[in-house]
Amino acid sequence: MTQNIYDDESFFRGYSALPRSVQGLEGAPEWPTLQAMLPPVQDRRVIDLGCGFGWFCRWAAAQGAAQVAGFDVSERMLERARQETQDARICYSRADLEALSLSPGAWDLAYSSLALHYIAGLPRLLGEIHRALVPGGALVFSVEHPIYTAPRQPGWVKHSSGRPVWPLDGYLDEGARSTDWLAKGVIKQHRTVAGYVNALLACGFSLQRIEEWGPDAAQIAAHPEWAQERERPMFLLMAAVRQGG
Amino acid sequence: MTQNIYDDESFFRGYSALPRSVQGLEGAPEWPTLQAMLPPVQDRRVIDLGCGFGWFCRWAAAQGAAQVAGFDVSERMLERARQETQDARICYSRADLEALSLSPGAWDLAYSSLALHYIAGLPRLLGEIHRALVPGGALVFSVEHPIYTAPRQPGWVKHSSGRPVWPLDGYLDEGARSTDWLAKGVIKQHRTVAGYVNALLACGFSLQRIEEWGPDAAQIAAHPEWAQERERPMFLLMAAVRQGG
Repeated sequence: MTQNIYDDESFFRGYSALPRSVQGLEGAPEWPTLQAMLPPVQDRRVIDLGCGFGWFCRWAAAQGAAQVAGFDVSERMLERARQETQDARICYSRADLEALSLSPGAWDLAYSSLALHYIAGLPRLLGEIHRALVPGGALVFSVEHPIYTAPRQPGWVKHSSGRPVWPLDGYLDEGARSTDWLAKGVIKQHRTVAGYVNALLACGFSLQRIEEWGPDAAQIAAHPEWAQERERPMFLLMAAVRQGG
Repeated sequence: MTQNIYDDESFFRGYSALPRSVQGLEGAPEWPTLQAMLPPVQDRRVIDLGCGFGWFCRWAAAQGAAQVAGFDVSERMLERARQETQDARICYSRADLEALSLSPGAWDLAYSSLALHYIAGLPRLLGEIHRALVPGGALVFSVEHPIYTAPRQPGWVKHSSGRPVWPLDGYLDEGARSTDWLAKGVIKQHRTVAGYVNALLACGFSLQRIEEWGPDAAQIAAHPEWAQERERPMFLLMAAVRQGG
């Protein structure tokens, strides 16, 4: 089973205070880019893998989705999601994504935000998502970028030039990484970009678009402290389609 | 026009002494990975963009290709390629890949090794390649990896941990990079991985596979000094197909 760090008391408190937890999608700077990769959701059946507080599920329902299913491993997050949701089209379920089982051919869109880099058995899960989609159905997701997850000691270092650089190492060696983010010993699964792409293609997905997210000029003008985030990408966003549609 | 650094005297001398220039494909450590991404070439019509000394053209002819066209900007490299080739199925031509024009629908495979990261107008060239291929035809190429081309000061630095790290910066800012490799002021075009992938998809290519090359265990056993190359990928390899085949 996936490490359920989200139910750790101090992690949950820290996570709940993040802008994306307080403000929802508008508090996630990569959301406009991810949103632009989504197909129309009106009248579509949508699953959200790692739904957290349910922000995306509620957004999809507000866009006119026919049915929305949110899955998360954290009972505390689902509890808050249910409290904040009044919409019979949305159903939240507790699930370990390592062992998730979905109805075949029952969904039009699978979405996941910053959850899949926790999953050791990603090829199994992608196969399950592929079977769950109708032909032509889409998978749109974000993960922490492999450049971000690779290093043994992630954190800016000062180059002899005086400028900050990202100390990349370990990139080609996929596997677990233990980092201290909001709590000690958070386990993420490092994969290369090729690892993600080839896992999608091996399931029969057709790749539609990739984005390597960093803040744009307008975001840096609003948050000058983000400028450094253009030196290396923080998030990897992908859109793929189940072929045969 | 592309900078023709290959006809620079000292660059040409240095390049001619590289293992890949002396031993051909077997001297290129990424060749087995790239070869595995190729479709069968027997009875196929093949173009090689940036053919250099013609090693791949001769390999394709030896595999039974029906016709092979090699293009390169360097007259000196083509001169040696012609001297070393006795095969009427192979034709070498001088061409600037920034302005290359190809017969539409006339080719089954387009191949390029470590040339496309010199091309500023890559979208134009990819469109030209797409039109030149038959439906179902393949494009297989390698470039220097974006992680490799991005940094302002490419070169290992020692982390405070004592280990070498790759000083990544500038990744999201695509454009020209001037580096000193075999000669001073060699101009390469830095693109992100997403930049390459989305340029392919925008032309109508379907992505088949990506590889981020680093040496494997057997290669490191034979060349222990290569171990560091696993810390970050050196080459990006892609295989794509013109849809409709």
